[in-house]
Amino acid sequence: MVQRLVVVGGDAAGMSAASQAKKRRPDLQVVAFERGRATSYSACGIPYWIGGAVETEAALVARTPEEHRAAGIDVRMRTEVTAIDLDRREVRWRELESGVEGNEPFDDLVYATGSVPMRPPVPGIDAAGVYGVQVLDDGAALRAELESGEVSRVVVIGGGYIGLELAEACRVRGLAVTVVDRSATPVGTFDPDIGEFIAEAVRCEGIDLVLSDEVVAIEVGADGRARAVVTASGRELAADLVVLGLGVRPNVRLAQEAGIPLGASGGIAVDARMRTQAEGVWAAGDCVESRHRLSGDRVVVALGTHANKQGRVAGINIAGGYATFPGVIGTQVTKVCDLEVARTGLSTEEAEGAGYSFVTASVDSTTRAGYFPGAQPIRLKMLAERRSGRLLGAQIVGRQAAAKRIDALAVCIWNEMSVDEILSLDLSYAPPFSPVWDPVLIAARKALEAVEADVRTL
Amino acid sequence: MVQRLVVVGGDAAGMSAASQAKKRRPDLQVVAFERGRATSYSACGIPYWIGGAVETEAALVARTPEEHRAAGIDVRMRTEVTAIDLDRREVRWRELESGVEGNEPFDDLVYATGSVPMRPPVPGIDAAGVYGVQVLDDGAALRAELESGEVSRVVVIGGGYIGLELAEACRVRGLAVTVVDRSATPVGTFDPDIGEFIAEAVRCEGIDLVLSDEVVAIEVGADGRARAVVTASGRELAADLVVLGLGVRPNVRLAQEAGIPLGASGGIAVDARMRTQAEGVWAAGDCVESRHRLSGDRVVVALGTHANKQGRVAGINIAGGYATFPGVIGTQVTKVCDLEVARTGLSTEEAEGAGYSFVTASVDSTTRAGYFPGAQPIRLKMLAERRSGRLLGAQIVGRQAAAKRIDALAVCIWNEMSVDEILSLDLSYAPPFSPVWDPVLIAARKALEAVEADVRTL
Repeated sequence: MVQRLVVVGGDAAGMSAASQAKKRRPDLQVVAFERGRATSYSACGIPYWIGGAVETEAALVARTPEEHRAAGIDVRMRTEVTAIDLDRREVRWRELESGVEGNEPFDDLVYATGSVPMRPPVPGIDAAGVYGVQVLDDGAALRAELESGEVSRVVVIGGGYIGLELAEACRVRGLAVTVVDRSATPVGTFDPDIGEFIAEAVRCEGIDLVLSDEVVAIEVGADGRARAVVTASGRELAADLVVLGLGVRPNVRLAQEAGIPLGASGGIAVDARMRTQAEGVWAAGDCVESRHRLSGDRVVVALGTHANKQGRVAGINIAGGYATFPGVIGTQVTKVCDLEVARTGLSTEEAEGAGYSFVTASVDSTTRAGYFPGAQPIRLKMLAERRSGRLLGAQIVGRQAAAKRIDALAVCIWNEMSVDEILSLDLSYAPPFSPVWDPVLIAARKALEAVEADVRTL
Repeated sequence: MVQRLVVVGGDAAGMSAASQAKKRRPDLQVVAFERGRATSYSACGIPYWIGGAVETEAALVARTPEEHRAAGIDVRMRTEVTAIDLDRREVRWRELESGVEGNEPFDDLVYATGSVPMRPPVPGIDAAGVYGVQVLDDGAALRAELESGEVSRVVVIGGGYIGLELAEACRVRGLAVTVVDRSATPVGTFDPDIGEFIAEAVRCEGIDLVLSDEVVAIEVGADGRARAVVTASGRELAADLVVLGLGVRPNVRLAQEAGIPLGASGGIAVDARMRTQAEGVWAAGDCVESRHRLSGDRVVVALGTHANKQGRVAGINIAGGYATFPGVIGTQVTKVCDLEVARTGLSTEEAEGAGYSFVTASVDSTTRAGYFPGAQPIRLKMLAERRSGRLLGAQIVGRQAAAKRIDALAVCIWNEMSVDEILSLDLSYAPPFSPVWDPVLIAARKALEAVEADVRTL
């Protein structure tokens, strides 16, 4: 039986695993290593802390090292794991402040190192003043820069949802912000017709959006700091600060060095119980790949909600219980300025990539009965498989109370419902909450018509 | 083939059926009779019109008689159907203004007469100043009374959701309002622990709530008008106006007289295609009974969203197509003052009545990440079947953005998911929209723990 558990990485996934395992097996020795200054914090909340909507760093921390210690977990803060030796069953660690090093033995190991921001391989990328924001300490550093009074122009490289959240955070601080993205519309996980609404919302907020262009170099001043971003089309965008918003990749360096196998996606390969292919080694969170239930592919999705669930599953299994993480379907929600956008399932590009043939339907409706005060616009797009009518994907764009409707559609996709079945669902209705035909039902009706029209051509 | 279709009742169900049938079979002669002055209006919106949130009666009308006529439907307004002769295949009608009568032949008939407010069989119930609010004309009459300047004290009999909506409508007009209900908590379709939050919200709004008491008589003044409501406990509640909020019953008088069979619930019995047991007669809307997918019982649920769907299904089938209405699961949402409440599936009382044995779990969470500005409280209660863990029911009470989460749970129940499966769902997460564990997932986790603890005792 497992006696000694070592956890590498003290955020959502790692500490969920540690907590579950310790709760179920109080006799288990659990040692958790965290390089940074915080445990169990909301990485997703960092942009809002940078922007000021969240006032304190502490607010982002769900559970402090002291709280974990009170639960019997030996948390080693500011301590980096530098190597994992699977044969000797030990990790090599180093205290970042003191430089002291040592080894910690384990029976089982949880690998939960999260992700690292993608860095485009362009000249100047490593200059001072170029920030990736992944861990809380990154956020603290960026926040300090923004508060220094020295920064007035920010360029964000990448218009994904994290890029836009960071852009907005800088904008609400009154800075001039430009976002550069290589696609024709921002947030490439959405179809372009939805992305256009996002672009409009971003621009309305006074953020410059440079699309269909990409960064080829960062100009560095004599002081060693980034001073401009140069794009493929020849633009030179002056910048006191450059923020990386290109998304993240799994932080797998240590795993690779230790011989813990990766999957085709580049994330750590795990089974449904979060076991890696190395004996007694588990992994969870942004560093692992998950099964996409629609495409069948393995995908890396960096999201706190998955990290928490996966950590919980790993911890239960380590403690001798049984739990599984049955995969993802690509659900995502974000707020872009005052626009709410959400998606679930496959986008058009993803569905095509997975080999599906499908019809689409888009409808414009309102979040409340049209006659009810405060009714807000909502556009809902559905992808339904040909013949079967199975819902493959849905995207929502709208104002207040629009986006969370994606959850009902996520449950539909999870259960492989057809748009015909969805049309019959007993969804909640009252004038302050939806039109008598909820937008979800209207879209299903239109998608069903498209499926049936298509069937007639087969 | 059907050539002549007669529709009795020109609101949601009837006109949806008429529209679908006519759209698919342009050659069909469609005659629709409506006793009132409006077609296709939102009965659910009437309380908001009375309260003033909705400014005009016209706003509640989705489609006017003229619009239906432009679509080729022969709409006869202010014309009551007084008898249905199934053998002679004709209806008897009477124009309410002129008194002119006549017959209209049909091949097929849609019976869509809606519902009528329940009236307690107490002395004085038929006095002037006692209002049931079901159709738009009722609402107009009540609104005129409230605007007359003669009314300052209103007693609402019945604290169901319509009763409370009407109470609030009167209260926002500055009137003194008392609601009398025989239960210990209002809105009896919710469990009492949820009902207590509703009671508190109602009282906070300055509405008097008299619970565990019931009306035994209405005192009538010398002018023939109601002047007080007398309760079983001996209260005498002075009233310039009495509003019935006891809910509704299906309007089946004509059907009974014609020999169209009712079901055990008292609503018109229909099959999945909305066919009654009388040849060539269809029924839809508040007057029919529906299959409850969890209890297996036939139930009458008066709700615009069902009426629209059922009407659509009837219309498609009448035109020679194929569509079904697969039943209901008791989803309901309402706003009580600034409190949002919603339910789906079975309440505790209903689940017990249906013979289920189950565990419950209640959790308190927030609508956004706890640290995010504007996070509102949400309480979520789940009923999960013993052994299987199947979700049998869910109830939500909270503030802004709480209630519509019920839809995801409605889809879970529709698909007979267990709380274990629900816990793995890929629901949307971002700090402005939910905590990293969405309240739905937290509740599922707690319910799963309860199911597992119970299994150990079996």
